[in-house]
Amino acid sequence: MKGIPRPPRAILFDVFGTVFDWRGSIIDEGRTWGEERDIDVDWARFADEWRGRYRPSLDRVRRNEIPWTKLDDLHRESLRAISANFKIALSEEEAGHWNRVWHRLKPWPDVVPGLTRLKERFTIAPLSNGNLSMLTALAKHAKLPWDVIFSADLTKHYKPDPEVYLGASDFLDLAPEEIMLVAAHFYDLNAARALGFQTGFVYRPLESGKGGSADKAVPGQFDVVANDLVDLATQLRA
Amino acid sequence: MKGIPRPPRAILFDVFGTVFDWRGSIIDEGRTWGEERDIDVDWARFADEWRGRYRPSLDRVRRNEIPWTKLDDLHRESLRAISANFKIALSEEEAGHWNRVWHRLKPWPDVVPGLTRLKERFTIAPLSNGNLSMLTALAKHAKLPWDVIFSADLTKHYKPDPEVYLGASDFLDLAPEEIMLVAAHFYDLNAARALGFQTGFVYRPLESGKGGSADKAVPGQFDVVANDLVDLATQLRA
Repeated sequence: MKGIPRPPRAILFDVFGTVFDWRGSIIDEGRTWGEERDIDVDWARFADEWRGRYRPSLDRVRRNEIPWTKLDDLHRESLRAISANFKIALSEEEAGHWNRVWHRLKPWPDVVPGLTRLKERFTIAPLSNGNLSMLTALAKHAKLPWDVIFSADLTKHYKPDPEVYLGASDFLDLAPEEIMLVAAHFYDLNAARALGFQTGFVYRPLESGKGGSADKAVPGQFDVVANDLVDLATQLRA
Repeated sequence: MKGIPRPPRAILFDVFGTVFDWRGSIIDEGRTWGEERDIDVDWARFADEWRGRYRPSLDRVRRNEIPWTKLDDLHRESLRAISANFKIALSEEEAGHWNRVWHRLKPWPDVVPGLTRLKERFTIAPLSNGNLSMLTALAKHAKLPWDVIFSADLTKHYKPDPEVYLGASDFLDLAPEEIMLVAAHFYDLNAARALGFQTGFVYRPLESGKGGSADKAVPGQFDVVANDLVDLATQLRA
């Protein structure tokens, strides 16, 4: 805990990649779905192309090129494009079901035990670009013990816009210095740190699959550098 | 479950009076606090006068006589007035501690077992005039298993303004007909029903103390009329 002036009172967590294995979850669902229909698709590529449209779609909102649109709807628009690319014909109902794969993601195995320990000592909540209904469904599906949920639609801004981080600080009645953001991605932690938040890095080497790229922090690069959420709990004495 | 077209997908709960025994909690804290300091106060009257300023203070916000002010701050202003009336001298620190009695309320004994059952089948959340930090602290203190928290500061409106109910419906991506509001107070249920929400009444005869007044519904007056949250769970087959 070098560099931490005092323990945080609340810990906020990035969700996609940090808490959930979105890529593995989509590949697993795709394989089952494809086998049942005898549809042969490279589901890893499908997952990567879907997620690849995530940041560009958020950025269109962030640059005000399109009005506020929640992530469920951005995902749906991206799904339309990639299902065409992969020559997968989806009915409206099937597209709706597929889009809600983002409500059924599997957490990394350390997440529930880590959060359960952290909740004993800290207020814990997601701080995600997901919309509230999506984050609520994800938490219910994975039995995550959040104390409260912070979604992008509360402030109608996407990370790394400062409004997202500062909105959570306002709602919690805590100063940024009293809050730690935990994420597997440098861009998110750097944005929070610039606003005065404490930062906790969690290494997720498999987010983009074996051999995929992943941010990897060196000791001291953030207030806490952890291998997973159980290690984070230990380092924070929870 | 007469009158319910189909089970709701989410259940929202009024908090003060419906979930928490605010009056008993304040009286208990007051007695302990007073005895330690040898201060003789009628803590039941103290609680009633503090709560008596609740609705008028919200209504000043609702009529735009004062700008948006969260409940913690309205409570603090009311505390200043009643502590003067009762001739209780409070330091800033003591006033802050007293004001946070609203973060430490005791739930009625049926609340945790009832919510635990309801959570298995429904998305459950408070829909309260409290602010988010207050509701988060209350839930943590009483170990309430909410899936998500809806506070007045999300929409910057107080019940019974329609924005509060419709805001939760929007965030949940559910139509009002798919959501049940549960409360011990007619005004709240009537406001929700006028917007299309299902309604569940819970009888809290002791909210205002023994012999105090309490709304009491007759069978059929709302979609569900229950004695407590365990009874509500049974009636909703949770």
